[in-house]
Amino acid sequence: MPHQFTCRVYYEDTDMAGIVYHANFLKFIERARSEWVAALGIDQREMKDRDGQVFVVRRIECDYLMPAYYGDDLRVDTSPAQVTGARMVLHQVVRRGDDILFDAKVTLVVIGAAGQPMRLPGALRQQLH
Amino acid sequence: MPHQFTCRVYYEDTDMAGIVYHANFLKFIERARSEWVAALGIDQREMKDRDGQVFVVRRIECDYLMPAYYGDDLRVDTSPAQVTGARMVLHQVVRRGDDILFDAKVTLVVIGAAGQPMRLPGALRQQLH
Amino acid sequence: MPHQFTCRVYYEDTDMAGIVYHANFLKFIERARSEWVAALGIDQREMKDRDGQVFVVRRIECDYLMPAYYGDDLRVDTSPAQVTGARMVLHQVVRRGDDILFDAKVTLVVIGAAGQPMRLPGALRQQLH
Amino acid sequence: MPHQFTCRVYYEDTDMAGIVYHANFLKFIERARSEWVAALGIDQREMKDRDGQVFVVRRIECDYLMPAYYGDDLRVDTSPAQVTGARMVLHQVVRRGDDILFDAKVTLVVIGAAGQPMRLPGALRQQLH
Repeated sequence: MPHQFTCRVYYEDTDMAGIVYHANFLKFIERARSEWVAALGIDQREMKDRDGQVFVVRRIECDYLMPAYYGDDLRVDTSPAQVTGARMVLHQVVRRGDDILFDAKVTLVVIGAAGQPMRLPGALRQQLH
Repeated sequence: MPHQFTCRVYYEDTDMAGIVYHANFLKFIERARSEWVAALGIDQREMKDRDGQVFVVRRIECDYLMPAYYGDDLRVDTSPAQVTGARMVLHQVVRRGDDILFDAKVTLVVIGAAGQPMRLPGALRQQLH
Repeated sequence: MPHQFTCRVYYEDTDMAGIVYHANFLKFIERARSEWVAALGIDQREMKDRDGQVFVVRRIECDYLMPAYYGDDLRVDTSPAQVTGARMVLHQVVRRGDDILFDAKVTLVVIGAAGQPMRLPGALRQQLH
Repeated sequence: MPHQFTCRVYYEDTDMAGIVYHANFLKFIERARSEWVAALGIDQREMKDRDGQVFVVRRIECDYLMPAYYGDDLRVDTSPAQVTGARMVLHQVVRRGDDILFDAKVTLVVIGAAGQPMRLPGALRQQLH
């Protein structure tokens, strides 16, 4: 079962084409990742303040399939597609009702205070096992 | 009773000072206004698509009292401070628990498709009567 | 020769990790596309206001190779990788000096007022011929 | 003579009303402040990395007088209105040609790593003397 997150489209998300500005879909799916990670017991703020560690996006492949509009209630489904010791690939899909609006594969790593690659937190490494 | 809206702080909202970027408080309070207006039965998308009418911010006075951080759950209280036929002033306060982080007076008008000032929707004009 | 566009990183672009927030690279490369398209004699505002036509992003594949920081002067190189009648793929690279920070392939189409696919403007269709 | 900064409006700045989203004017004037401060010889990134000090907005009063549109070339004029040891008020005006679109008074302070108020850098304290 993918992790589910919902959000609503506000004025700030739209552009003069009358639809959600394309870069803002990346914000929606990052909110979803934040909630997914928190649900696994990982406190991103503590990771950063105590350990100097942050998640960093390494690669994104995404398809924009249908536009989203002001007032839309969107659902983001997040599921791990591949998790190794130091890297994970998430599959994230944004839906409005039954319609798929946006489909992304996002590759993430964790880096330390000096920018060096770190092992993923254990709670994440166990996601595909 | 003010209208209440809650939102959470995500990565997108923060800046390199480690706190919410100041302009993003304006986004939070606009989300709250959107929900307040919707709760009064006004459909902003229909207003725009059918009548070419949009709300426009005319003036903001705001004080930044305390910073907000990643993961904070914020509450926005919105209450009408002054409503005339064509203009309204809202008082909007952002809180985290008992702390007031941000306090704003926002003046709004409605303009038509040609940019001309319009009367406020009736549901808004009745708010202070 | 790719089209070149430069921009500077400001506070708004950064996040609490102290680097440019990943989604904001999409804004940088869109600014570059806007300038590239304008340099080809295409007026996006007129396209929209007169013809109801807008460019829409259909797909992005991008790699984040190195972080960008406040105050960095970035250069975006834009070159057409593939152009057919109704679709174009652009290769866009963000550099700081000799370092490549971000590398993207962006697929774009033009849609009309009713959302229907349109032929690309002639000035674009001639880019790879 | 006020400090002058120019910027262009891109797609990211607009909203579904077809104009620049109101909160984005705060981004434009912050870019201008960054350039003004840099022109006075103050390196904000070094201030933060070496001394843990950052500028913080305390209060904004602003009037939205005319809308800005995609493709507009805007000029931001920045001039100090009041500077004391620990606080400064800047007057910032956004123009398109001869038209004034936005007029703001912004109050800023500098805080240290623990959030405590600091004296403004000397180069700023001398601005009104």
